[in-house]
Amino acid sequence: MNKHHLIANIKAKKSFLCVGLDPVKEKVPVHLHAHKDWIFEFNKQVINAVAEHCVAFKPNTAFYECYGSWGWEQLEKTARYLRETHPDQFLIADAKRGDIGNTSTMYAKAFFEQMDFDAVTVAPYMGEDSVKPFLEFKDKWVILLALTSNKGAQDFQYHGVPTLHEKVIGTARKWADEDSLMFVAGATRGEDLADLRKAAGNHFLLVPGVGAQGGTLQEVWKYAGNKDEVSLLVNSSRGIIYAGNGEDYAQAAKAEAKKIQEEMAVLLLKA
Amino acid sequence: MNKHHLIANIKAKKSFLCVGLDPVKEKVPVHLHAHKDWIFEFNKQVINAVAEHCVAFKPNTAFYECYGSWGWEQLEKTARYLRETHPDQFLIADAKRGDIGNTSTMYAKAFFEQMDFDAVTVAPYMGEDSVKPFLEFKDKWVILLALTSNKGAQDFQYHGVPTLHEKVIGTARKWADEDSLMFVAGATRGEDLADLRKAAGNHFLLVPGVGAQGGTLQEVWKYAGNKDEVSLLVNSSRGIIYAGNGEDYAQAAKAEAKKIQEEMAVLLLKA
Repeated sequence: MNKHHLIANIKAKKSFLCVGLDPVKEKVPVHLHAHKDWIFEFNKQVINAVAEHCVAFKPNTAFYECYGSWGWEQLEKTARYLRETHPDQFLIADAKRGDIGNTSTMYAKAFFEQMDFDAVTVAPYMGEDSVKPFLEFKDKWVILLALTSNKGAQDFQYHGVPTLHEKVIGTARKWADEDSLMFVAGATRGEDLADLRKAAGNHFLLVPGVGAQGGTLQEVWKYAGNKDEVSLLVNSSRGIIYAGNGEDYAQAAKAEAKKIQEEMAVLLLKA
Repeated sequence: MNKHHLIANIKAKKSFLCVGLDPVKEKVPVHLHAHKDWIFEFNKQVINAVAEHCVAFKPNTAFYECYGSWGWEQLEKTARYLRETHPDQFLIADAKRGDIGNTSTMYAKAFFEQMDFDAVTVAPYMGEDSVKPFLEFKDKWVILLALTSNKGAQDFQYHGVPTLHEKVIGTARKWADEDSLMFVAGATRGEDLADLRKAAGNHFLLVPGVGAQGGTLQEVWKYAGNKDEVSLLVNSSRGIIYAGNGEDYAQAAKAEAKKIQEEMAVLLLKA
C-alpha cells in the first residue's frame, strides 16, 4: 500500500488507529483455549470486530515465535486472513529485525513474500546496509525505530550530539523518502514528540501507544500530528484486544476501538 | 552451558571455532533439493562432519524464517538434533532480537524454552529493559551487538563520545557479568579489536568472521585473544558449509573446519 492510499483510508475512516495483535494465552478468553488454532481464532474475531474503526493491524512476532513453528503458522494464518478479508488494512509486522545486507534480505522475504505484510519494524543499530534490503521491495515499508517508549530508551537513544535517535532519523531520511519509510516515535513527553515530528518532516510516525505507554491521544495529536497529511498512526494493543475476557470479548474490543476512533474523528475534524 | 564449561571445551578441542548454519537453497548441493526436510538434512550432515573441530554452532534465524513456518520447523529440528547428539556444543541463535521488557521475555522463551539454545544475539538499541529479560534465564547468555562487521556499522556505532559501541559495552557490563554476557566484535581493523577487548575485559567476544568479513585469524587472536581465559569465539559460515557443493559436501566442510581448527591450535599453544 502506498502513502496516498493509506492517507485516503485514514481520511475516509476518520481514524489513524493501529490495533496490535499480541496474543497471550493467560489473557485470551478461556473458551478459546482448547481450540487447536486458538491464536488465529482469537485474532480473527478481534479483526472482524474492530476493522471498521482502524486502518492498520500490527502483530508483534515475539508473541507468535514463543510458541515455536505452530506459533509461526498462527502468524501466517492471521496475515493471510487479514490480506484476503480486509485488503484495505495496512499490515505491520512488528519484528524489530535488522542484520547484514544479505541476511536482511532474507528477513524481508519472510515478511514481504512468504507473508504479505506492508511494513516491518526495523532496528537501526547496524546501519544502512541492514535497512536498505527491506526498501528494495516495491510498495513495502520500513518502520525504523527512532525513539522507543520504554525506560531503556534512555540508555542509548539520547547518546551523543545530536542524540542518537535524531541522528537515526536524519541519516535514514537520505536512504528513503516518505513513501517507504516511517519512524517509531515512542515519546512520553509532548516536547519530545514535537522534536520528532520536526526531525521526521512529513514521514509517517508510528506512536506505540497512548495511556499506559505514553501520553493522551490529544497530546500525541497536538505535538506529532501533521495537519496537512495526517502522517500518523497510533497503536493500541492490550487496551483493545483484552478489553473483555468473556465470550463477548470481540464486542468489548470493538467498543474500545470505536471509542478511540471517535476521539480521533474529533481531532481530524479540527485539523 | 556456563563459562567454565565453554572454556574447558575450547581447551580440550584446541578450537574456538563457531560454525554458522545459514542454509541457502541455491548453494546447497542439488541432490538434497527434493528432500522434504532439505535444510535439516543439509545441517545434520554438516554438523556431524565438523563437530569435532568446533565448539559452537550458530544458525541465523533469517535463513529459516524466509521459508515460513516450515523453515521455523527446520530450525527447531536442527536445534533439537544438536542438543541431543552434541550436548557439548554451545548453541547460538543469531536472531538479533530486542523489544520492550515483556516482549523480549517472549523472544527469550522462543529460544531458551521452546528451543534449548545457550545464547541469543540481541540488538542493544532499546536499552536495559529490552536486554535483561534474556538474562533472567539460568545458564543462558546474551550476545549483545557492539561493533558489527558490515559497512553500515559506520553509520551509528561510532556516534558520540564515547562511541556508541563503547557506551553499549560499558553500560551493559553493569547489567550482567562474564557468565552470561558476550559481545559481538566485528572489527575489521586490529586496533579496533584491541579497543573492544580492552572495553570488554574478560567477557567473551564473538567475532563474526575471518577472511571475507574481517582480518586474518592471526590478527584476531593477536588483538582480541585473551591469553588467560581464551574468551573468544570466531565464526565461519559460508567458508565452511559451502566449501563443497557435490555429494561430498560434508567432507569438504570438515576439511575446511579442520584447517581452521589447526590454525587455532597453533595460536592456543603459543598462549
